[in-house]
Amino acid sequence: MSSLFEKHRSTLETALEVIRHRGFWSAYPEMPSARFYGEQAKEEGQQAFDALLNRDFILSGHPEQGRAGNEQSPYGVALDIRYPVASVETLVKQSQDAGKVWANTSLNVRMGICLEILERLNNMSFEIANAVMHTSGQAFPMAFQAGGPNAQDRALEALAYAWAEMSQIPSQTDWVKPQGKAGDLVLEKHWRIIPRGVSLLIGCQTFPTWNSYSAFFANLVTGNTVIAKPHPSAILPMALTVRVAREVLSEQGLPADVVLLAAEEDGMGMAKQLALHPDVALIDYTGSSAFGQWLRTQAATPLVYTEEAGVNSIVLGSTDNFDAMCQNIAFSLTLYSGQMCTTPQNLFVPRDGILVNGERKTFDEVTAGIASAVDALLVDPARAVMVTGAIANQATLERVATMRGAGRLIRDSAALPGMEQVRTATPLIQALDASDENVYGTECFGPVSFVIAVDDVEDGIRRAAQLARTKGAITAAIYEKDEARLAKAIDAFAQAGVNLSVNLAGGIFVNQSAAFSDFHGTGANPAGNCCFADSAFVANRFRVAMWRRPKSS
Amino acid sequence: MSSLFEKHRSTLETALEVIRHRGFWSAYPEMPSARFYGEQAKEEGQQAFDALLNRDFILSGHPEQGRAGNEQSPYGVALDIRYPVASVETLVKQSQDAGKVWANTSLNVRMGICLEILERLNNMSFEIANAVMHTSGQAFPMAFQAGGPNAQDRALEALAYAWAEMSQIPSQTDWVKPQGKAGDLVLEKHWRIIPRGVSLLIGCQTFPTWNSYSAFFANLVTGNTVIAKPHPSAILPMALTVRVAREVLSEQGLPADVVLLAAEEDGMGMAKQLALHPDVALIDYTGSSAFGQWLRTQAATPLVYTEEAGVNSIVLGSTDNFDAMCQNIAFSLTLYSGQMCTTPQNLFVPRDGILVNGERKTFDEVTAGIASAVDALLVDPARAVMVTGAIANQATLERVATMRGAGRLIRDSAALPGMEQVRTATPLIQALDASDENVYGTECFGPVSFVIAVDDVEDGIRRAAQLARTKGAITAAIYEKDEARLAKAIDAFAQAGVNLSVNLAGGIFVNQSAAFSDFHGTGANPAGNCCFADSAFVANRFRVAMWRRPKSS
Repeated sequence: MSSLFEKHRSTLETALEVIRHRGFWSAYPEMPSARFYGEQAKEEGQQAFDALLNRDFILSGHPEQGRAGNEQSPYGVALDIRYPVASVETLVKQSQDAGKVWANTSLNVRMGICLEILERLNNMSFEIANAVMHTSGQAFPMAFQAGGPNAQDRALEALAYAWAEMSQIPSQTDWVKPQGKAGDLVLEKHWRIIPRGVSLLIGCQTFPTWNSYSAFFANLVTGNTVIAKPHPSAILPMALTVRVAREVLSEQGLPADVVLLAAEEDGMGMAKQLALHPDVALIDYTGSSAFGQWLRTQAATPLVYTEEAGVNSIVLGSTDNFDAMCQNIAFSLTLYSGQMCTTPQNLFVPRDGILVNGERKTFDEVTAGIASAVDALLVDPARAVMVTGAIANQATLERVATMRGAGRLIRDSAALPGMEQVRTATPLIQALDASDENVYGTECFGPVSFVIAVDDVEDGIRRAAQLARTKGAITAAIYEKDEARLAKAIDAFAQAGVNLSVNLAGGIFVNQSAAFSDFHGTGANPAGNCCFADSAFVANRFRVAMWRRPKSS
Repeated sequence: MSSLFEKHRSTLETALEVIRHRGFWSAYPEMPSARFYGEQAKEEGQQAFDALLNRDFILSGHPEQGRAGNEQSPYGVALDIRYPVASVETLVKQSQDAGKVWANTSLNVRMGICLEILERLNNMSFEIANAVMHTSGQAFPMAFQAGGPNAQDRALEALAYAWAEMSQIPSQTDWVKPQGKAGDLVLEKHWRIIPRGVSLLIGCQTFPTWNSYSAFFANLVTGNTVIAKPHPSAILPMALTVRVAREVLSEQGLPADVVLLAAEEDGMGMAKQLALHPDVALIDYTGSSAFGQWLRTQAATPLVYTEEAGVNSIVLGSTDNFDAMCQNIAFSLTLYSGQMCTTPQNLFVPRDGILVNGERKTFDEVTAGIASAVDALLVDPARAVMVTGAIANQATLERVATMRGAGRLIRDSAALPGMEQVRTATPLIQALDASDENVYGTECFGPVSFVIAVDDVEDGIRRAAQLARTKGAITAAIYEKDEARLAKAIDAFAQAGVNLSVNLAGGIFVNQSAAFSDFHGTGANPAGNCCFADSAFVANRFRVAMWRRPKSS
């Protein structure tokens, strides 16, 4: 059964190497190009997606006590897909039953299966991209990249970490203790990996695969079973993932129920019910801080890994390329309409402006520069929507409306013209003063950002770092050419437990986090208690049991 | 400053090797012999200990808002040592201040300091042994071994795991992403270890150093500061440890307050107050399940590592050496009067007896064999006390009295004759039926054990494993010659998350757990949520922060 392992061994080995030096690598090409995926891939992916609409989603052998599903594409397509639903008791029971077999498979078998699942997911990246696009509202290019290969890379990264931790446990040894004249005391000792049991994976709407795959695969390879509970508005991408996983498991003669889908419609409350079940041993969650807090304190298991809300900042001090800075920031604000956990919300700008090649640009010149750069991105609506995507959730549109007027208007938000069926909103940018922390000190998820007047760069750094420490942050950025000032910023943001991007320009953005190189999140501030992925993310998902006896017995 | 690292580098390197193959190794000789420790060591250790009695304990530069201390040796010596005490606010504040410097030291510097502390602790193992003996009640040989070198080995083991995790994080890399015709995208990326902050270490009376050192050193080397809060009845061993650590820190020009002592007398409630402080970021705890539960659910930080109560079992099925089995079990029951977290409490014996070389010994013959072996160990009181040690806590004596009569008496507990000043109690052994789980299903800490009549070996395995799963267990053992039955037992105990010893005889006992080889505890049942030590024990004690920028910027 370990032939799948041999088939994929070199992929694992490269991943193991790369997570140590953290240079660039990607196992799954992120370009939606025929060169990598074949001439027919795009067309076939579209057809495969279309064939899913307006019918029951087939999950062969999956427990089914009814059907549910009410996904609406933010692009105006009604998906009308109905997924099998089962009670919490049924899901947990069948997960546990499958776990008895899964727990006894070897690490190599589990790794081979996980890597095979990943390969098949990669091959259907176009289909997944359509599924991600029409649930999250991401534009197709991002849905492909983030929802497909980038998510698969994150999965592989988690598999590599899990492998590194598990493979360091020897399966046996002879323990030979010298006893002087009494001769040696010899014990044979045997170790085995014991999984935690049933894991629960609670997904989010905006990144249904990217934010779920690290845990999904880490749990599988460590021998746990997985109940995937996607967001009610973004079930399809994980349903497809579950289907592939179940197919590979079945082909290998293993119970498909190692992976189950907990589909639900809004208001069914499956996440809470599952989290309170005493046999759910592990929970991974991406979403609001309120429910994160509930899970961390009320779930039956203490093993809860979260990514929650945060308030990301950019501090502007100085630059030698004003236009490139403005364009870079503008893209970060506009990309997927600010619906990324990595989107900056607060731009801290000194009251008396910033230094550009030694000359001062006023506060208003800075805000105007950024607003113009956003406008430039959005000139052509057909191109613009490829950057903004659609608004995933009606509540985000309402938040934009509510926040309008919270500060001095710099750039208003509007729907993209000429595409009424798509739910869009361009960036709302408003100016605030440092004293308005009651406004900018909370996450306003979506295309809402603030340019905040501060005393000076140091004041901006202090406020941004303090927000990261107290409210959480996944990203931070600074534009600053002075190395001494930069060094202080680096210290401040590190102490606040947030990763910092410096002087970004060109084709790299603060929103982006690369598998194998950038740890996503730190687990060191309220935006989450873990990161994707490191040793701590995987090492407690399994335990080790030993038996030992005198060698001669 | 890294010369300490160079001085001790080879010790670390060996430890790193051994934790991978888990064969026998010890960095610190466990024999209290002049050969290892010098001709004068024993005498000097005794003198050093004597010089501590009846006076203020000197902790140079330590915050001091008063004095406290009321330790009573279970051997009848009144220690009358008064330790500096300070308020929770003062301790946390000074720990945080010291942490600002400590967090910025390099990993090599911290590791060098930790290894130097360990070497000095090793050199004063006789002094520490006296301190452990006269607080825990352990007999001198055990106090030396477990309180000195074995604890130091556990510390080194934790250091090795922490090193393995931290040293895999590169300090920087160039991330070079090919962009086709657009050329390469190059980011320089820099990573640093960021500690959690102030750690709190809540010790127990019975193993004041052994149960504390793994966390003490893991926290230090990962850059956290340590507030050691020993059990009010066993302050001295950790006070000495804190003193050594502070001395080494000061010599290296670092703030001694990186390590602080939270001494207290019974009823001062320091542990709770410290645990509720919002700036205490990490807690390690050994002790009762009741307080463990409180910490896990009520402490300000969710990062709580515990070793709590459990109910350890031995299942008796068959043996080819009845006497050796009885002697081995008898020693395990008698050693330190059952006051080890690894002491077996429940012996499950088939109602119709066990097989010895194919012949049946009745249930009563088995109980008689074990009782006689205990008696034989205790014939000479002067030798006996070297096995039993003293009873650490008056409450344990009371528990023995309360439990007397809970079952059919097999062997009564009594004080050792002729040593009235020492608080002793020999093993109380009583017979129960499998149906008496209300009695044997709870931890009776101390020299209290039960021989429980079960239907057959399988019944015993099932009950012992079920107790481990539901009530926790640190150890389990079985005597069984049938390999098929043994295989089932191995599965059952692994699934219950408990390490299993098989057919132990001669000089190795179920109570014993060897650093670098035996993971102590599994973290997979209610007896604790972690083990000493593995990756999971260390990997979340620090986090990683990155900064990155375009290479040419």
